[in-house]
Amino acid sequence: MFISFEGIDGSGKSTIAKLVDEKLKSEGYETVLTREPGGVKIAEDIRAIILDKNNVNLDDHTEALLFAAARRQHLKEKIIPAFKENKIVLTDRYIDSSLAYQGGGKKLGVDEVYKINIFATDNLLPNLTILFDMDPIEALKRIDKNKNREVNRLDLETMSFYKTVRQTFLDLANKYPNRIKVVDASKNIEEVFNDTMKLIEEKLNERE
Amino acid sequence: MFISFEGIDGSGKSTIAKLVDEKLKSEGYETVLTREPGGVKIAEDIRAIILDKNNVNLDDHTEALLFAAARRQHLKEKIIPAFKENKIVLTDRYIDSSLAYQGGGKKLGVDEVYKINIFATDNLLPNLTILFDMDPIEALKRIDKNKNREVNRLDLETMSFYKTVRQTFLDLANKYPNRIKVVDASKNIEEVFNDTMKLIEEKLNERE
Repeated sequence: MFISFEGIDGSGKSTIAKLVDEKLKSEGYETVLTREPGGVKIAEDIRAIILDKNNVNLDDHTEALLFAAARRQHLKEKIIPAFKENKIVLTDRYIDSSLAYQGGGKKLGVDEVYKINIFATDNLLPNLTILFDMDPIEALKRIDKNKNREVNRLDLETMSFYKTVRQTFLDLANKYPNRIKVVDASKNIEEVFNDTMKLIEEKLNERE
Repeated sequence: MFISFEGIDGSGKSTIAKLVDEKLKSEGYETVLTREPGGVKIAEDIRAIILDKNNVNLDDHTEALLFAAARRQHLKEKIIPAFKENKIVLTDRYIDSSLAYQGGGKKLGVDEVYKINIFATDNLLPNLTILFDMDPIEALKRIDKNKNREVNRLDLETMSFYKTVRQTFLDLANKYPNRIKVVDASKNIEEVFNDTMKLIEEKLNERE
């Protein structure tokens, strides 16, 4: 079982992913919670290049290729070994983030970015993707409140960029309704968590 | 004018590229001599990940995506600006190295690796590619003699790998005979240099 958590920055997906991981473990499931980009040493090295504030000349196509490279390594070293141990893999971001951010937000084209990600993933898609949907302005307000979270290069992108990212995520959910389920992330955390768990339990029951 | 120098390690292409650069400059041409992977800061950072001997787990697909990422950045920051100044660009390796090494040698498939490189380069190909062809065993002997050249992770690949790389380069030359010209790199350096200059002069005359 492979579940990805997607959404714009500040949507609360990382917090919910942690709560889901704890909940599933408490129910006796074996889980692995991971995140992109990163999760393994080579992918973290690639992540450092992407997020380095000095890399102002980083080209959008280069960035998309680096995310795909980090994704491949993370898949190979962390996700696939967990599948082999029959664990539930929960990943904070996966392929849809590239489609929405680089394909949509950076206007490289969803289909074009999907092509390099087919190469990167052998088209291995999650069984379930939870899309945490919310207005980017509300999301940014949340980020500002959270003083522990360091603002990185990607955060500096404009608000219109995030609006396009959000819309691209929603378009993907519309295109792949069986895989991608939308949760209203503007609700309070308990409600968002409950909505998420309901979707995950449905999927787990489907497969048992 | 965009010229790439291709061939297996030890084929002498870097030495010849330097001699060509000096010769063209002496004839009054404005040239830029560069190399892949690298040539600009971000691409050098990516190169460091690829060549790091500690990265033994580096997946072949990850490697191909990293080469494509470095290529994009190098193209954007170094090659395209040089075109805008009407300079002749000489590059030590370009797209064909990925097709031959990752597509052929690592068996990822030439067509598959070409796809991610179309994304990386917008299919911008050299006007002329010189392929320095020689037997990999002879090439390795040359490398061993050259004590100044550091042996890196990629050098540790097996000889059968290099044989496949060589054959893939030759197959590419066969497929793209107008762009890729083969030079017998087993000859002595003066002869190889003269054969190379003859091909370049033909191409320069064609365009004048």
